[in-house]
Amino acid sequence: MQKATGRVSRRFTPVSFTDVAIEDRFWAPRIRVNREKTLAHQYAQCKETGRIDAFRLDWKPGQEPVPHIYWDSDVAKWVEAASYSLATHPDRKLDALLDEVVSLIASAQQPDGYLNPHFTVVEPEKRWTNLRDCHELYCAGHLMEAAVAHFQATGKRTLLDALCRYADYIGTVFGTGPGKKRGYCGHEEIELALVKLYRATGERRYLELACYFVDERGRQPYYFDEEARARGEDPSRYRSGNYDYCQAHVPVREQTEVVGHAVRAMYLYSAMADLAGETGDATLLAACERLWDNLTLRRMYLTGGIGPTRANEGFTCDYDLPNETAYAETCAAIGLVFWAHRMLQLDCDSRYADVMERALYNGVISGVSLDGERFFYENPLASLGHHHRQPWFGCACCPPNIARLLASLGQYVYSMGEGGVAVHLYIAGSARLRLNGALVTLRQETEYPWTGRVVLRLEMEQPARFTLRLRIPGWCRGTAARVNGEAVDLSGKVVKGYACLEREWRNGDRVELELPMPVERVYAHPEARQDIGRVALQRGPLVYCLEDVDNPVPIHRVMLPADAELTARFEEGVLGGVVMLAGQAVAVSDEGWESALYRTQPPVRVPVTIRAVPYCVWDNRAPGRMAVWLPECA
Amino acid sequence: MQKATGRVSRRFTPVSFTDVAIEDRFWAPRIRVNREKTLAHQYAQCKETGRIDAFRLDWKPGQEPVPHIYWDSDVAKWVEAASYSLATHPDRKLDALLDEVVSLIASAQQPDGYLNPHFTVVEPEKRWTNLRDCHELYCAGHLMEAAVAHFQATGKRTLLDALCRYADYIGTVFGTGPGKKRGYCGHEEIELALVKLYRATGERRYLELACYFVDERGRQPYYFDEEARARGEDPSRYRSGNYDYCQAHVPVREQTEVVGHAVRAMYLYSAMADLAGETGDATLLAACERLWDNLTLRRMYLTGGIGPTRANEGFTCDYDLPNETAYAETCAAIGLVFWAHRMLQLDCDSRYADVMERALYNGVISGVSLDGERFFYENPLASLGHHHRQPWFGCACCPPNIARLLASLGQYVYSMGEGGVAVHLYIAGSARLRLNGALVTLRQETEYPWTGRVVLRLEMEQPARFTLRLRIPGWCRGTAARVNGEAVDLSGKVVKGYACLEREWRNGDRVELELPMPVERVYAHPEARQDIGRVALQRGPLVYCLEDVDNPVPIHRVMLPADAELTARFEEGVLGGVVMLAGQAVAVSDEGWESALYRTQPPVRVPVTIRAVPYCVWDNRAPGRMAVWLPECA
Repeated sequence: MQKATGRVSRRFTPVSFTDVAIEDRFWAPRIRVNREKTLAHQYAQCKETGRIDAFRLDWKPGQEPVPHIYWDSDVAKWVEAASYSLATHPDRKLDALLDEVVSLIASAQQPDGYLNPHFTVVEPEKRWTNLRDCHELYCAGHLMEAAVAHFQATGKRTLLDALCRYADYIGTVFGTGPGKKRGYCGHEEIELALVKLYRATGERRYLELACYFVDERGRQPYYFDEEARARGEDPSRYRSGNYDYCQAHVPVREQTEVVGHAVRAMYLYSAMADLAGETGDATLLAACERLWDNLTLRRMYLTGGIGPTRANEGFTCDYDLPNETAYAETCAAIGLVFWAHRMLQLDCDSRYADVMERALYNGVISGVSLDGERFFYENPLASLGHHHRQPWFGCACCPPNIARLLASLGQYVYSMGEGGVAVHLYIAGSARLRLNGALVTLRQETEYPWTGRVVLRLEMEQPARFTLRLRIPGWCRGTAARVNGEAVDLSGKVVKGYACLEREWRNGDRVELELPMPVERVYAHPEARQDIGRVALQRGPLVYCLEDVDNPVPIHRVMLPADAELTARFEEGVLGGVVMLAGQAVAVSDEGWESALYRTQPPVRVPVTIRAVPYCVWDNRAPGRMAVWLPECA
Repeated sequence: MQKATGRVSRRFTPVSFTDVAIEDRFWAPRIRVNREKTLAHQYAQCKETGRIDAFRLDWKPGQEPVPHIYWDSDVAKWVEAASYSLATHPDRKLDALLDEVVSLIASAQQPDGYLNPHFTVVEPEKRWTNLRDCHELYCAGHLMEAAVAHFQATGKRTLLDALCRYADYIGTVFGTGPGKKRGYCGHEEIELALVKLYRATGERRYLELACYFVDERGRQPYYFDEEARARGEDPSRYRSGNYDYCQAHVPVREQTEVVGHAVRAMYLYSAMADLAGETGDATLLAACERLWDNLTLRRMYLTGGIGPTRANEGFTCDYDLPNETAYAETCAAIGLVFWAHRMLQLDCDSRYADVMERALYNGVISGVSLDGERFFYENPLASLGHHHRQPWFGCACCPPNIARLLASLGQYVYSMGEGGVAVHLYIAGSARLRLNGALVTLRQETEYPWTGRVVLRLEMEQPARFTLRLRIPGWCRGTAARVNGEAVDLSGKVVKGYACLEREWRNGDRVELELPMPVERVYAHPEARQDIGRVALQRGPLVYCLEDVDNPVPIHRVMLPADAELTARFEEGVLGGVVMLAGQAVAVSDEGWESALYRTQPPVRVPVTIRAVPYCVWDNRAPGRMAVWLPECA
């Protein structure tokens, strides 16, 4: 662990998704559907629901719908997603549509720089009066992320300039200077967005504003208390109970447990990691590491889903991981990817990449249907058959969040730093890199996540010495590597979970990795009471589940004998092609139970052949029950 | 099953609690505490919170507290409980206090007979404008029950006369006659109360009004719709969604599943059973039988708790019986006792008595602490250690409900009918009966529920021929009986679960019953997914649970091997004297789990000695976790 007294640096930099081609069977079809279906679908939803036209500022009292306080963020995330897509796949129509939306957004900016339809036309008198609940700075943050994305994709400055003006205006309102409000947003987001704005513009004042928002958070007297009193409200009547809900209960450096609304938490911790890297502040990194351990050792589902309860859309207590009622919001798992990715740049440790991979392959991508037009808000680990993806939501944060993630997925695969390149994820395709002056194309050939064999080929004009860091996944035991056909002894070469191969690399060099990928039984910590006596199935990075549609009995009646063999087989025709698991299990029979709800004879167990599919693709066929954790029997 | 075309009669009549002495070790101490502590405690709560003084009608706008719409029912149930207590245990001070409270209540009656503080002083303009939500007729019903109880205990007519006037006034407002409202209450209660009023006064119009309320329920067009429109409200915005919530979705004879708010359902079904018996309407009984099967074969906890969810304080779907989040309101289990008891008078079938016993010994009596001054509203079957009894509630229905049940418990033990007496419950004590002209004292000597040996002695001036019906509990296998020392072959003598011993009985006759009471493992129906792979422990009528305080490991880590022997032993010093169970189980260990939330090696199991106590007395010692259902392992 990093000492809190030292200084931190961002030692690695992600390779931009614009330099990474994804050509595998798992992600590439998802990204294509995202581009070809999801973006149009989401634009239509934003248009039909009035979210886009809200920026026209022509709303009149009494008119329905009323521009909502968080609508801007949905449009912003769509702009961000569409911009990323444009950056990798030029599309004249999408470019024109983006121009139109971006101009409309910019047109809503007020002379002082303010940019928020709701608080411009619906409740102008309430501007900045309720940071705790009203998402004003959150929306601003999403618009900043959109602006940076659009600028980077197209070079067009319309939105970027507008958002810089808005950020500058925000900087005149908030801060520690005389006459400024000591406020910060109830829903974190602007903090990480300001870091992006700083990186895109080089304007240090945006970084400083991000630092202010993070440093001010949770200080006493609470800004939210004062703000509530100014509105004539009793702060103790806050409906979320206390400021844990928005991670504003204590200053961020004193926080030790992940609490409150899970998405807010992830966005805050992401910003903290960003700022630790940018400013070298080791106290921020130390807080991040403490929070990371608490989250990943006590409060994370096997799927990378986080935030078990609907009550606060967030965290409860250690080891409380109910399956059927798991909230595990799609946005929260995405937020976990954001945070893990940032931690990974500060410290190339596979514990961050392992969690990032777990979330991506399970609890994130479960959030969207294979056809790209239906979305989960909640991602439970068991279902009675009534939980299905929806085309849209009144609170529609998740759909465009997953769209922007998929459109920029390439950035999570590689990082540059410490004299080389790190490969975090195994995804067939290629990356263009500049390594010690040499232009290198790194090609991955693999059927991952369906098999554990990965071949990496280097194409380069001239030889160059650098370190190739290859992540050994945490789920993997017995990794073998070869360079140009020759076995490499990895002992002593693995640093923080990455096999470090340093040499003078030449054009045509070929590295092979064998990541054994048996079907694994996974058990949860004994304090996770909801999983006691239960087992889950995992193969490679994929968590599996049973669905009624593949099984001969209602799946809540299945028990898996401890010695049951399970086999894996690629099924071309199922769910677009997935590896299914199969094996002999038992099912408790309801024979003889017609006239009893309880009895002293245990239910008879009958043998059944069960089949399991990756959790991430459940609910894409006939509706039915689903379960990840199965009772294990002798 | 009774044919829907036949006629029904109430074939049995409960022996009044005033003729039954309870002298056992299980109930007698509870009844004494109820009399000596609970009644005073609850009076103080009613007084301190303003519930009693609300009847002074001196509330002025702006004054706190505001008399609440359901306060009257709390006071009424306290009057009822205190009256029952007075009937068996004369107490001059309590008598005087009751006179005072009863006079105060009666003094609040309006010239037209109306009697409801809230709608007299707080919102007089809203009288009878919202039957759906405002509990007006519900409160009237509880006052009627109180009036009957006070009259029967003391012979004093003050409250009875007031409630007859109120009932007569209600009869002028509601009904099918010209100018009357076709309304009925959102919270059933008045229906069964009017039957009591009819039985106490002999005035058939009260029975007819009860019939009207039951028959009108659920007819279309819905009264609640029309009433909402009359208030200027959109009926479709009913916050409970639909009229399932209050069993008013279809006419009662068409209802097939127990739905909605569990207490409301039980009070309605109780009234339906009453009316079936009073009017001979077999269609009502047929509906009751269908609903009974649905409840007891699909929707009832092992404890007799019912209504699994807080969302509607009621029912969800078949076999949905979550343990940790079980709502299982104390009042609902009490309502189940009311209903079971009424069904039992129509049909002396042990399936009704079995459920009545299950609820009484488990999910009802769990509702009050051993010291009589703290109460559960919810009775979950598992707890993390944060669920504790409270001295009172803002919505305080449960505390006085359990007080009135305990004060009148004797009425559930015996019934007279069909040429004899039926013994439903085995409780040491005695009953005074008149059987075919003979005065009979029936004495029970037993340590039940701690042992299954019961001795019944008959004391009578002259011999008499009658049938002694002795319930063979559903949990019991291998019952043996002796009469005057001679074994009786029960085969052919058991009718609907009752051993029917018909003969000329003489003074000094002695019947012995041996009800073998081993520790039983109980399993739930395979559709009850929350209990799959789990086992519960029961001995006699008592369901057991594990509490942290008795066990060497956190009890959620315990698994019970299928072959573990369990022993039962009476522990004088524990919880006032209970039989505890003990045995060898295993616990999953958290050794080696410091750095993992999930792993592929199953947790190590270590042997532990576990101890279990009756569920009904949990949370009377050091706070901690509790569980009824334990994972079973090989």
